[in-house]
Order: sequence, then structure tokens, then C-alpha cells
Amino acid sequence: MKKLGLVYVLLIGLFLIYVLNYKLHPDPADPWETAGLRGNIEDKYVMVTFQSGIDYWKSVLKGFEDAAEELNVSVEYHGSTQHNASEQMTVLEQTIAKKPAGIAISAVNSKLLTATINKAVESGIPVVLFDSGAPDSKAYSFLGTDNFNAGAEAARKMAELTGGKGSVAIITTPDQHNHQERTGGFSHTIRSEFPEMKLVSVKDGHGDQVASRQAAEELLSQYPKLEGIFATESNGGIGVAEAVQAQKGSGSTLQIISFDTDKGTLDLVKEGRIAATMAQGTWNMGYWSLTELFRLHRDLQEDPDAYEGSKPLPVPDKVDTGIDVVTRANVDNYYAK
Amino acid sequence: MKKLGLVYVLLIGLFLIYVLNYKLHPDPADPWETAGLRGNIEDKYVMVTFQSGIDYWKSVLKGFEDAAEELNVSVEYHGSTQHNASEQMTVLEQTIAKKPAGIAISAVNSKLLTATINKAVESGIPVVLFDSGAPDSKAYSFLGTDNFNAGAEAARKMAELTGGKGSVAIITTPDQHNHQERTGGFSHTIRSEFPEMKLVSVKDGHGDQVASRQAAEELLSQYPKLEGIFATESNGGIGVAEAVQAQKGSGSTLQIISFDTDKGTLDLVKEGRIAATMAQGTWNMGYWSLTELFRLHRDLQEDPDAYEGSKPLPVPDKVDTGIDVVTRANVDNYYAK
Repeated sequence: MKKLGLVYVLLIGLFLIYVLNYKLHPDPADPWETAGLRGNIEDKYVMVTFQSGIDYWKSVLKGFEDAAEELNVSVEYHGSTQHNASEQMTVLEQTIAKKPAGIAISAVNSKLLTATINKAVESGIPVVLFDSGAPDSKAYSFLGTDNFNAGAEAARKMAELTGGKGSVAIITTPDQHNHQERTGGFSHTIRSEFPEMKLVSVKDGHGDQVASRQAAEELLSQYPKLEGIFATESNGGIGVAEAVQAQKGSGSTLQIISFDTDKGTLDLVKEGRIAATMAQGTWNMGYWSLTELFRLHRDLQEDPDAYEGSKPLPVPDKVDTGIDVVTRANVDNYYAK
Repeated sequence: MKKLGLVYVLLIGLFLIYVLNYKLHPDPADPWETAGLRGNIEDKYVMVTFQSGIDYWKSVLKGFEDAAEELNVSVEYHGSTQHNASEQMTVLEQTIAKKPAGIAISAVNSKLLTATINKAVESGIPVVLFDSGAPDSKAYSFLGTDNFNAGAEAARKMAELTGGKGSVAIITTPDQHNHQERTGGFSHTIRSEFPEMKLVSVKDGHGDQVASRQAAEELLSQYPKLEGIFATESNGGIGVAEAVQAQKGSGSTLQIISFDTDKGTLDLVKEGRIAATMAQGTWNMGYWSLTELFRLHRDLQEDPDAYEGSKPLPVPDKVDTGIDVVTRANVDNYYAK
């Protein structure tokens, strides 16, 4: 009787093991089934910015976090508080010392940051650049806006708004490379695609609301028939909207196109005071930065010399994260969630 | 006695369930652990090309398959056998009818394929374009070579090989857009960066080995002091190498730069008869096409209207899959594996 009991125990036990193992591997016979992409939650991927407190990075970080959650890895966010290269170098040095699984960095100054970025790559940490690149560094990839194209898209929208006729002007930050490109794309497109339009002036708004307002006021008195102003950054856009309101009132038909999607700009789009703003693919910058870093980290873990010598790399050279035109019609899709 | 046996059975059974369940969920308390990215093996992602039998697509398909294996989804490969738009349209129609999880297509003709590509997108199938795009279509993304940049890189390599001096020429296929861009990037870079070099001639090689050989022979007699020839596609490169061998013998110092990495070209690089060839990021085109399609498919499954109206898309606008310079030193890394 006791032996029979033991046999029962064994039989039932084996049956349970069988059932639960089946649950574990539902179809162990299919050789194509794989486990999917899943990282180690202890692997830390670090995003490094400058002026780390500004709104602009929030959506980039959200993309970075979304990809990390999907892939079961962890994320940290650091940056210099100011627009300051030596401060960002220090932050990057500290990050390297912790040997993270990967670093995505937006370089406040491409030349000054290159040596520290190379140090990270040489110590075996995958690095990609986003938003603001360092083309001569050894980073594996760059993800950001094609700013010339963004300026060209702004010009096409301006032509649509003004009926393809009349005088337009730009307020920009002439000493910054990405703003030069936006200005270049806008002016090239007006010149080559819209013969009845004319770019009459390019003014310096110093990336500042008050200075841009003043520049816009000068424009309005100098060119009373001006049909539109393109502001290449968002402080400028708000300043221009203030100048137009003050000088022309709320019935003005002057078309303003601005850049980026901070709350202040979106509110003015919603009110109809800014006709359109150019939205950068910030979520994409973060999401695809992490996706690329994950791929690189896995390779380098298997073989630390995987990318030594000149070989094809498993990540693209450059990713154009895209540009959208935001107007009153779709502005609600662009408020931060 | 019998009752005691039953109690044993129950206790041991419960213990086994506990142990095996622990194996299933090693640390159920950690809220950060996620399952990772894993698709359904029954989801089919289709790659569509033209001249589907040529070597060039092999590495693209390998990238597509590598990503599919990682993500536990399935892959099919189709294409027109010829360089023929209506044949490719038929293949694409047949593919759409099977309602795959996603389509990556290289368009043999951007204008003629646009309507069929839009039909796929409108029926809810995610579509990305690779290698040869269709900029006016509704496809979500383009992944391919920046051909202007590839031509610029070829020019810089040519300058390195010739010591930044002397006359050079191009043999190209002037009616194809990507070849116009390679030619443009090469000539712009010679003109703007190397004042002691001169581009003396651009000839039509018709994408053909024999025609390119003939064009090269004409160049060699017309410009006996020619220092280098850039062939913008691989048949041309082989034809140029034959012409140089025939007219100048194997001791020639004329530098040939070709394009792509088919076996014939790589063998000539290995022998030193072609100095360098420009390798496109073909594996990247396939790998990142599938990765983007996977992301889009998941969103559209959750909400078929996810991308209706004008919203930020979760994939980049354009991916520059990169260009590598292949020489004798690294040629072994570029043979198909």
C-alpha cells in the first residue's frame, strides 16, 4: 500500500512537470521560434545633453525610455546645466567612468567634445550622437534633423500661406550651424521654386525673445508690405508674434512660421497668431538612438574587437529623424503627453 | 493509509508547481522587467526588389532575415526578374493581396510605382522603401545610400591616391538619378576641395562592361596623362580595369575607383587592379527596414488609425545607410558570408 502511494506520487509529479514544461516551451519542435530581443535590466544606457533642464529634451528622453522599456534595459539622464562645453566634457567623463552599456550624446560643441567622445568609443563603449553632431568623432552614428531640408519645407509652407507671392524675411541665429542650414534651405527654396517671392532681409534675433521682437519691429517698419517672417528658433517666433500683435493688431495677415514645439509656440499656433511651426522628430532621436546602441552593445559584448579595422558597421551612418509642419489643424497632436 | 498517500501527492504536487512557476517568473516582484521585443512567427514581412536574381540584394536580404530572426517573425522575398516597372507592379499587387505584416520595396521606377505603394499603405500595410526610393509616395521611410556623399567620398579617396594632383575622369550611367548624384558629388568635391586636380571628362558607360571598356579606351588615348577614373557602377569598373590592363599593362599607375562589392569587383581590388571600391550599407538597408516595419506593424495592430491625420511618426524620414571605402587592406571583410 505504501509503495503504491509512492508510485502515485511519482506519476502525478511527472505529469505536473510535463504540463508545466509544456507551458514553458509551448512548441519546442519549431526551430524558427526565437526568444526575441531582450536585454539585461542591469545594463544602463545614458543620454547626455546640455542645458539639460529645457523642455526640448523631454520628448527625446521619452523615446529613449520607450525603447529601453521594450528592450528591458535601464536608462539614465545627465547633462550640463548650461550651454557650456567644458561642463559637458566633465559630465561625459563621469559617465565614461561608470562604464555604461551605451551613450547617446548631443554635443554642445562638435570640436571641443570630439576627444572625449573618442575616448568613450576607444574604451569600448558604444556612442551615438543625436540632434547636434560631432562629424569628425569616432561615434558610430548621427540621428537628427536635416536642417537644410527643414528650411526648405518651411519655405514651401510659406509659399502656400502667401499664395506664392510677395516679400518675406528671416530672423535667425547666424553664428549657429544648424540655423545657417535652416536659413540656407529657406532662401534656396524661395529663390529656386517661387520666382514671385522675394527674401528681402535676414536679421539676427540672438536666439532671444526680446531681441527677436525688436528685430521684427525693425522689419515691419522697414518693409510695411512684408507678407511673412520665418523664425528659425522658438524664442524668436514668440518675439515676432509679439511684434506683429503690437504693431498690426490681431487682424494682421502677416504669416509667421516658427520652429520647434514648446508649449508657448504651440499655444500661439492654436490661437492662430503663429501660422505654422516646424516640429523636429525628437522622439525618434531618442528611440532610435537607444535601438542602435542596444545593437552595438550586443556585438561588442560578444567580441570587443568587433569593429576594429575597417568593416561594415551594423548601424546607419546618419538618420534623418524628419520634420513635420504643425498648424492649427494638427497642433493638438504635438503637445507633450 | 490511502488518505495519507493522497496528502503526500498533494504536497509534493504543490511543491513542484511552486518550483516550476518560480522558474517561469524568476523575479515577479520587479516591475521594470519586461518581456522584450518579440513578434509572432506567423507574421510575414516581405522584401520586394527588381532584377531579383542579382548578387546585390543578397546582403540586403541577409540583414532583413537577421532582424526577423531576432524578432521572431517570418520573411519572404519576391521581385520582378527584369528591370521592368509593370512586372514589379504585378509582384507588389500580389504581395498586397496576401496582407503581409509589412513590405520593404526598392522601386525600379519611382513614378510608376507610387500608386501601388500608396494602395498598400492605404490598405493598412506598413511600407518602407530602400535603396531606390519613391519620394512622392506615402511610404513611411526611406533607407539607402546618400549618393552625392558617396561620390564626394570617392573624390577624396581619388585625391589621396593621386597625391591631390592631375587629371581624372568619370564613367557613369547619365540617365539614372543615383548615378547623376554620384557624379555630382565627385565633381563638386574635386572642384571645391582639390584645386590642383581637374575633372577632364564624363563619359557614358551604359552600365555595361563592354561599353565602359570602350569608353575607357577612348579616354586613355584622348588623355594619355590621366591619373584616375571613377566608375559609378561595378560593370563599368570591371570594363575600365580591362581597358587599362590592355593599353597600359599591369604596371599602370592609373587609379581606378569603382562602386559596389560584387565578387568580380572585390577580386580586382584584391589583385590591386582596382584601387578602391565604394561599399554601400546593404545589410543595414535590410536590417533597419525590418526593424522599422516591425515597429509600424505593432502600432497599426493596436490602432489601425494610428497614423491617420498629421502626427509625428515613430520612424525616421530617411536613413543614410552609409558608405565604406574598400581597398586591398580591408577587402576580405566585404566578401559575402
